[in-house]
Amino acid sequence: MLFTKEEYKNRLKKVQKSMQDKGIELLISQDTNNMNYLTGYDAWSFYYTQCVIVHINAEEPLCFVRAQDAGGAYIKTYLKRENIIVYEEKYIHTWPMHPYDPLIELIKKNKWDKLNVGIEMDSHYFTAYCYEKLKQGLPNAKIKDSERLVNWARLVKSESEINLMKGAALISQEAMKVAMKTINPGVRQCDAVAEIQRALFRGTSEIGGEYASIATLLPTGKGTSASHLTATDEKFVEGEATIIELSGVNKRYHCPMARTVQLGKP
Amino acid sequence: MLFTKEEYKNRLKKVQKSMQDKGIELLISQDTNNMNYLTGYDAWSFYYTQCVIVHINAEEPLCFVRAQDAGGAYIKTYLKRENIIVYEEKYIHTWPMHPYDPLIELIKKNKWDKLNVGIEMDSHYFTAYCYEKLKQGLPNAKIKDSERLVNWARLVKSESEINLMKGAALISQEAMKVAMKTINPGVRQCDAVAEIQRALFRGTSEIGGEYASIATLLPTGKGTSASHLTATDEKFVEGEATIIELSGVNKRYHCPMARTVQLGKP
Repeated sequence: MLFTKEEYKNRLKKVQKSMQDKGIELLISQDTNNMNYLTGYDAWSFYYTQCVIVHINAEEPLCFVRAQDAGGAYIKTYLKRENIIVYEEKYIHTWPMHPYDPLIELIKKNKWDKLNVGIEMDSHYFTAYCYEKLKQGLPNAKIKDSERLVNWARLVKSESEINLMKGAALISQEAMKVAMKTINPGVRQCDAVAEIQRALFRGTSEIGGEYASIATLLPTGKGTSASHLTATDEKFVEGEATIIELSGVNKRYHCPMARTVQLGKP
Repeated sequence: MLFTKEEYKNRLKKVQKSMQDKGIELLISQDTNNMNYLTGYDAWSFYYTQCVIVHINAEEPLCFVRAQDAGGAYIKTYLKRENIIVYEEKYIHTWPMHPYDPLIELIKKNKWDKLNVGIEMDSHYFTAYCYEKLKQGLPNAKIKDSERLVNWARLVKSESEINLMKGAALISQEAMKVAMKTINPGVRQCDAVAEIQRALFRGTSEIGGEYASIATLLPTGKGTSASHLTATDEKFVEGEATIIELSGVNKRYHCPMARTVQLGKP
């Protein structure tokens, strides 16, 4: 468990307070970052349906994951086993069967289907299909946009979170030094990213790095007119500029950094 | 341009044929892979609204991107400049303003607002909010699920695509060799990923690697009960197994590979 149980309880209270302010009695959050914040869940499984369900009076959230990911939820979350809700693999990529079928059953079984239900309308992974399933499956619920209430709760960081971000900053700094050293005329862009990625994962002797929510961006030459281009196997050219954007990550906490280097005279 | 203009034209024809079969006159595709397939667009910009719009009779798709990404679209797509539609930065994270406001204006201006419009209902990044915007902004259109028609068109690969995948396979092979060599008792998991990532980006002397759509997964020990866990800074342990899942990438074409290693006797 990465944070104390007290810290997780405080997070839940902040979110439930915001739910009360917005008139939301049941929150369905599919944002991976929000899931991590509320439960500790952290696995590369967001490409299929998963979510956290928060009832306004609950002492713990529910974590809703597919069977294959139950093991990850048992290891990573602070939740009691009964609060990890596992849906069967038969719902995976067997359209028109969908994981929101068992989700709707769960909500009905708990008699939550007449509540004011908050959803994350503009969140990745909560697809239009999920939205339609909820609307059709819960005709008596009042479904409304939660307007990123968990994201807003996350905005003010605790001391333990700030310490993790400071660790991520050290990693970003190390990787940026490696980038500055490696980017030279005649070097393939991909080889520079190779060294940057290596540094990002090695981190420091105390703090190991992990995968980031952003690829190392490395637009160079005329590519600097397009800030979101990534590296190719072409070589850096004398006289050209390169924008480096990277992020060290420590226990999912990021500290991104961007710098521009110029090789010789512009 | 990564593929010949003829190949892009064939892709468009395949998609338009499928649109005809499904009674779709205008397709809005926000799936990043489909955008790449139809236009060549490829940048780390999918976290905000972007899409490809295909009219059933058009000679080229339209690529709809934010102003900051116009440069990337000019460099990466095969499209005529007039077919790259750029929306203003003022729509970025200024809710309730939304990039689908100018998208709806574009559709109306072209008198496409009474057509049968296909959308990707269960696609990432096409959020529930986008869906509501379209429904409210185009009350006279008949909006229906395109049922992944572009994804189905992509299923049969051309020879040039298969060649790219063969290149990605070489990279996966090299990285897996590095993984096998590096994973040893006492080594931090993150340091193993550091070497794997380095190998994935270096690729071969002919083919440079790039970022993958999957993080290197490395569940180890009791973590092997949870197939989607990624590396931490803990060390590999004698007697335990580790699942390695990685993917080499060549011009966005992936060739994933998974193997299990056992350190000593189970």
